[in-house]
Amino acid sequence: MSLNVEGGLKLVLLAGGSGSRLWPLSRRFLPKQFIQLRGHDSLLELVSGNFKGLLAPGSSIVVSSSQQAFGSAYKLLAGHTVLAEPCSRNTAAACGLAAAHCLAAGEDPVLLVSPCDYLVKDAAAFRRTAAGAVRLASEGKVVLLGSKALRADPAYGYVLSGAARGGAFKVGSFSEKPKLQQCRRLLRGGNACWYTGIFAARASRLFRLLELHQPALAAGLRACCPAGAARGAGAREIPEHIYCSLPDLSIEKAVFEKSKDLLLLKLSSGWTDVENWASLYRLGAKDKAENVLKGDVLAHDCRDTLLYSDKRLVAGLGLKNTVVADTGDALLVCPLDRTSEVALVPRALARQGRLQEHSHETVRRPWGSYTLLGRGTSYLIKRLELDPGAGISLQYHRRRSEHWTVARGTAKVVRGNRTFLLRRGASIDIPLGARHSLSNPGKTALSVVEVQNGDYIGEDDIVRVKDPYRRPR
Amino acid sequence: MSLNVEGGLKLVLLAGGSGSRLWPLSRRFLPKQFIQLRGHDSLLELVSGNFKGLLAPGSSIVVSSSQQAFGSAYKLLAGHTVLAEPCSRNTAAACGLAAAHCLAAGEDPVLLVSPCDYLVKDAAAFRRTAAGAVRLASEGKVVLLGSKALRADPAYGYVLSGAARGGAFKVGSFSEKPKLQQCRRLLRGGNACWYTGIFAARASRLFRLLELHQPALAAGLRACCPAGAARGAGAREIPEHIYCSLPDLSIEKAVFEKSKDLLLLKLSSGWTDVENWASLYRLGAKDKAENVLKGDVLAHDCRDTLLYSDKRLVAGLGLKNTVVADTGDALLVCPLDRTSEVALVPRALARQGRLQEHSHETVRRPWGSYTLLGRGTSYLIKRLELDPGAGISLQYHRRRSEHWTVARGTAKVVRGNRTFLLRRGASIDIPLGARHSLSNPGKTALSVVEVQNGDYIGEDDIVRVKDPYRRPR
Repeated sequence: MSLNVEGGLKLVLLAGGSGSRLWPLSRRFLPKQFIQLRGHDSLLELVSGNFKGLLAPGSSIVVSSSQQAFGSAYKLLAGHTVLAEPCSRNTAAACGLAAAHCLAAGEDPVLLVSPCDYLVKDAAAFRRTAAGAVRLASEGKVVLLGSKALRADPAYGYVLSGAARGGAFKVGSFSEKPKLQQCRRLLRGGNACWYTGIFAARASRLFRLLELHQPALAAGLRACCPAGAARGAGAREIPEHIYCSLPDLSIEKAVFEKSKDLLLLKLSSGWTDVENWASLYRLGAKDKAENVLKGDVLAHDCRDTLLYSDKRLVAGLGLKNTVVADTGDALLVCPLDRTSEVALVPRALARQGRLQEHSHETVRRPWGSYTLLGRGTSYLIKRLELDPGAGISLQYHRRRSEHWTVARGTAKVVRGNRTFLLRRGASIDIPLGARHSLSNPGKTALSVVEVQNGDYIGEDDIVRVKDPYRRPR
Repeated sequence: MSLNVEGGLKLVLLAGGSGSRLWPLSRRFLPKQFIQLRGHDSLLELVSGNFKGLLAPGSSIVVSSSQQAFGSAYKLLAGHTVLAEPCSRNTAAACGLAAAHCLAAGEDPVLLVSPCDYLVKDAAAFRRTAAGAVRLASEGKVVLLGSKALRADPAYGYVLSGAARGGAFKVGSFSEKPKLQQCRRLLRGGNACWYTGIFAARASRLFRLLELHQPALAAGLRACCPAGAARGAGAREIPEHIYCSLPDLSIEKAVFEKSKDLLLLKLSSGWTDVENWASLYRLGAKDKAENVLKGDVLAHDCRDTLLYSDKRLVAGLGLKNTVVADTGDALLVCPLDRTSEVALVPRALARQGRLQEHSHETVRRPWGSYTLLGRGTSYLIKRLELDPGAGISLQYHRRRSEHWTVARGTAKVVRGNRTFLLRRGASIDIPLGARHSLSNPGKTALSVVEVQNGDYIGEDDIVRVKDPYRRPR
């Protein structure tokens, strides 16, 4: 049963991460909230699951990047209303966008805003606290959620609780990633919380605070969301020329640190952020030598070590305090106590224009995924995996021919004016310039091996004639 | 100009390694002497190059495993006489086999025997010492080559030089991999050499020593090489039931430690063994932080570290004294000072029957190579690379169909009674049971993408009708 809140309740999930701190598992086009960690749910699913029971169906908004919303995260985002940021402008813009979107649609719900980078131990306790925040927000308050600081850790943002006020606390001062010395001082005070990034406020209240403290940001957001915006689920694109010129500020810096009379509720649910490889090590099940071993790994005489393998065999011999994180096309090896520096690597790769900065070998698409298997100067080998009932857009290529062989399942192929049904082992040529589409009419997965041949082989040589997923061309 | 030796001179290259200490670069079917280290010559080529000028053309014998001789090392071994061991029986059997082979052919050359696991700095100086050994061997001596021990290293075999004797030294005692304490004592004596495994002896002299000290071994070897064995190059298979029952002994233990009046010559050429990852680190060019970086690697704040990548991007962050060795299907991470233990890993894999113990993803074949690109329960995707002029055997499969797409070059395909010429982008079906062959009639490389489909997909489902490389079925 969902909470009965006057004016309604919307969960706002902030999912516009940069995918750099869990590299090579996370990538720019697939940040950590969308990764399915070795068969488990993604953080987006785990986090939104924490709020289950509070919300009416269809009342969640995900603020994500347009690359993700129309590409790699398309399927994960189904069922949410998606606000697709054309570029990442930090949490003040993202939170404000959700508020502006609701106000433009003539609604003024309570917004329960949450990042997607944490796990909780006791989901029921978490929901109780979140429900309390929603109740206070429905009465006009802005309520932040904190989790009692357990150790002096400079990686966190801290917020101090002030005087008790109606079941909550007044918010004292903020301290974003303080030095170790200061962390210790804060902890000695006894009222230090880690700020979780979760908060509740009515849309109009949040937007008024933005107008007060960040008038340029508020004006820009209003321009992004003209009155009468369409209701309901689906990915909404935000005008790039406006949104990308907005100031890049966190909601804490932009609004909360400047506001009086904010309230704080303390979580008793056990809250752990998933920030970097050290977090995954902390969260993982340990063997006798305190190793966390995931995937096809072999540890000989290792200690306090995380071996993570996506595909390949990873052998560690005599390692201590080490992270080995292996994916199909990139590998990271790093001491466990330096994983906070990992973002340096994708940053260096971005400067070199390397594929491994933004994408994996296997790229998720609305219809399934494709995996790059091999390439030469004038050819490329891919495996396409199509979900039952799914299909790629009707398209053609200017520079390449394609040849498809069905490896598993049954394929429906449209080529020119004809339609073919191809079973396992069958194959078909798609000449250069021919309009074609591929779909999976069956109830089981379809795997097709694609060999592309041409003088130019690039993802951008796709002319979409008709796209079931309405992606930008 | 080659040495003029009465009775002739044969170089015997011992190349039957187990491929475990440089894992995952080396594998059982591709031990270190056959690895082409990132575009460089293999150790087999480098070592045999050291003897260039001493030998008449066609006078080298390689003792290798039959798996290698007929498979992964086929092309590297072209031009050598190859004795293909059905199983590895250590150096006493391998050296004796070469001697028995020559004697059975009615020849009694001087054998210059060398392992394939070292590099020298000054090839001319090396050749002078080797020529000296050959000269003494032609006069009936057995001459070992040593290299002055430079440090107390327990990884080496030691030999002490005795009294000077005709430009050489008498061999004093042997000490195989002594403890560090004893290494130090040996070094203090001033006449300690590392034993290089290189020696020269006339075939009949070596074989007489075997008959004297290892009569069972000698008798078995004689049975493996019946009189009148064919001359000339090509891979010769040795009877498995005899050879595999021979005692497993090193030539040092079997003969040299028991023999009086052996001679020792000292190399002044600079000699470094290539034993494990620490050797490759020692041999590699260092950057300012004493790192050795090979392949697509990115080192941030690393020191005294070897990053080796065959294919994938390898990123090291904050590493010290570490080896990261990455290949297509397996990765090793290990402290630099524990690389002598690496053989533990393939040993553990062998117990599990893992592919990564014996083969790479890319498997060399007489006609080129194939690479496993992907697999499912009932299909398999491979890329075949055929050398110009080369072809696979005429064959058929009982359990699978195949579909070939030409990705590069032009393919000649025989299927049943018909022959097809397929250009880039073209494709063909090979139904289950159909006789077929694939060859490269062109002068450039041929790449073919193969999709196999069937209820059983295994390398052993090949029935060879006709094989240009005369491989065992």
